[in-house]
Amino acid sequence: MDAAMAKIAFLGLGVMGGPMAGHLAKAGHDIAVYNRTAEKADSWVADLGGAAAATPAEAAKEADAVLACVGADADLEEVTLGPGGAFAAMHEGALFVDHTTVSAKIARRLAEEGEAKGIHCVDAPVSGGQAGAENGKLSIMCGGSKRAMTLAEPIMQAYAARIVHCGGPGAGQQTKMANQLAIAGVLQGLSEALHFARASGLDLDKVFEAISGGAAQSWQMDNRWKTMAAGEFDFGFAVDWMRKDLGLAIEEAEANGAKVDLAKLVDGYYAEVQAMGGSRQDTSSLVRRLEE
Amino acid sequence: MDAAMAKIAFLGLGVMGGPMAGHLAKAGHDIAVYNRTAEKADSWVADLGGAAAATPAEAAKEADAVLACVGADADLEEVTLGPGGAFAAMHEGALFVDHTTVSAKIARRLAEEGEAKGIHCVDAPVSGGQAGAENGKLSIMCGGSKRAMTLAEPIMQAYAARIVHCGGPGAGQQTKMANQLAIAGVLQGLSEALHFARASGLDLDKVFEAISGGAAQSWQMDNRWKTMAAGEFDFGFAVDWMRKDLGLAIEEAEANGAKVDLAKLVDGYYAEVQAMGGSRQDTSSLVRRLEE
Repeated sequence: MDAAMAKIAFLGLGVMGGPMAGHLAKAGHDIAVYNRTAEKADSWVADLGGAAAATPAEAAKEADAVLACVGADADLEEVTLGPGGAFAAMHEGALFVDHTTVSAKIARRLAEEGEAKGIHCVDAPVSGGQAGAENGKLSIMCGGSKRAMTLAEPIMQAYAARIVHCGGPGAGQQTKMANQLAIAGVLQGLSEALHFARASGLDLDKVFEAISGGAAQSWQMDNRWKTMAAGEFDFGFAVDWMRKDLGLAIEEAEANGAKVDLAKLVDGYYAEVQAMGGSRQDTSSLVRRLEE
Repeated sequence: MDAAMAKIAFLGLGVMGGPMAGHLAKAGHDIAVYNRTAEKADSWVADLGGAAAATPAEAAKEADAVLACVGADADLEEVTLGPGGAFAAMHEGALFVDHTTVSAKIARRLAEEGEAKGIHCVDAPVSGGQAGAENGKLSIMCGGSKRAMTLAEPIMQAYAARIVHCGGPGAGQQTKMANQLAIAGVLQGLSEALHFARASGLDLDKVFEAISGGAAQSWQMDNRWKTMAAGEFDFGFAVDWMRKDLGLAIEEAEANGAKVDLAKLVDGYYAEVQAMGGSRQDTSSLVRRLEE
């Protein structure tokens, strides 16, 4: 496979997959796209070229590499192993890369199914959000064999700022879960700090100036303190998706005997934010349940 | 008062106060020091010059500025308002700066007592730890009047990387509390992320590489992930002090009607770490209760 110009199928053209597939097209690859809502695939092709396929299998049948970025475990299972799924159509030696954040269990299952069929699999969830997908600066956490990584890396370079091979099948998903566990703690701490500062009558800009250069610093503080202070939440990474991710992490933690009490607590707090109408708001809306 | 060469009294020569007073001596100020354990004051004077005083009042009586860095509220009250305390000896127009992390209540009380006596007061807790005190790079969060800040700033420059005037009396202490609330969340999230990653069998160096450049990043991750992974905790900011600070924040939150449930939870977790013998260990030892 020549990574400089490969035949690639991309399954799922949402806010992440759409721009990621766009970077592959701009890199000169020959792209076939599939999307559950066919109009989205047609409009993507009208903008960026390539071909729209009616099923994942049709997109995948000639492909050197099939990449997916769909919703959750069930969607991923459908586009890979379901009727009209990609796996049955892929040829031996082809590559499958999943960019969806899903369970480590399904990542391992796809790797096993792939091995039986001679398909090299990488589980490769991303971080960096919609902006990272659009400007091609995603961090990609990968699980899979060395051989699969060798095939996947030159392709993913089209939209990656950082690619890390974390371990065998499922390790990419587990690393993404660790990422979300860390974020849950950061955001709850930040929410209490901001809520406390406001309740104390402090000038929130001064507090930011005083604490953002030291041991309390975080990406979330640097990028969300001011929007949280202003009550702006209609952007960013949605609460619904965070709950999905925390659910995956909590399930995996239980399977491995890991204690994640804070994640469980914060997941419950996010349920409160959903009940307040915050489902589509940024994860920093966690502060709302303290303030309202 | 000429900040370039003022008469300064420094009360409390511990791991923070000792080096801070040292920077003032090196900046050319005329220093009188007081320490509860007199030997420490004698040895400081032998190294750095100036005079050792038998009581805070003796150190303070000629001073343009009196600075304190002691243990907690009771210690601060003793060296300021107690028998032989500094306030009774200070002259009108003098400056008092407290670098101890204490309650906002005592900061406001000293500001009131000061106002009655014509003493300008600043509550000025610091962050940056022992290293910051030694290399003169502390972040200082200040509460007090504009006039008091004008007097205090040129003196504090001797050991500050950042000085922020957060508001009136007590605002420095409240800002420090917000700082500690943010840290509590960051560290519990980081502990769960690391514990989860280890329980999942991941390579902790790879996880760090994958997640430290994105939305989960924090100062604590940058500076503590590797030591936490290695089980190294005998350095840094002690659990005993963190519990003291969280206690102050929780008390102040209750006084202001702020909800800090995570801080209460983490305070209880730190009590477990103390029971495991971790009282003097760095705050990142929070992970121990998950791992052992």
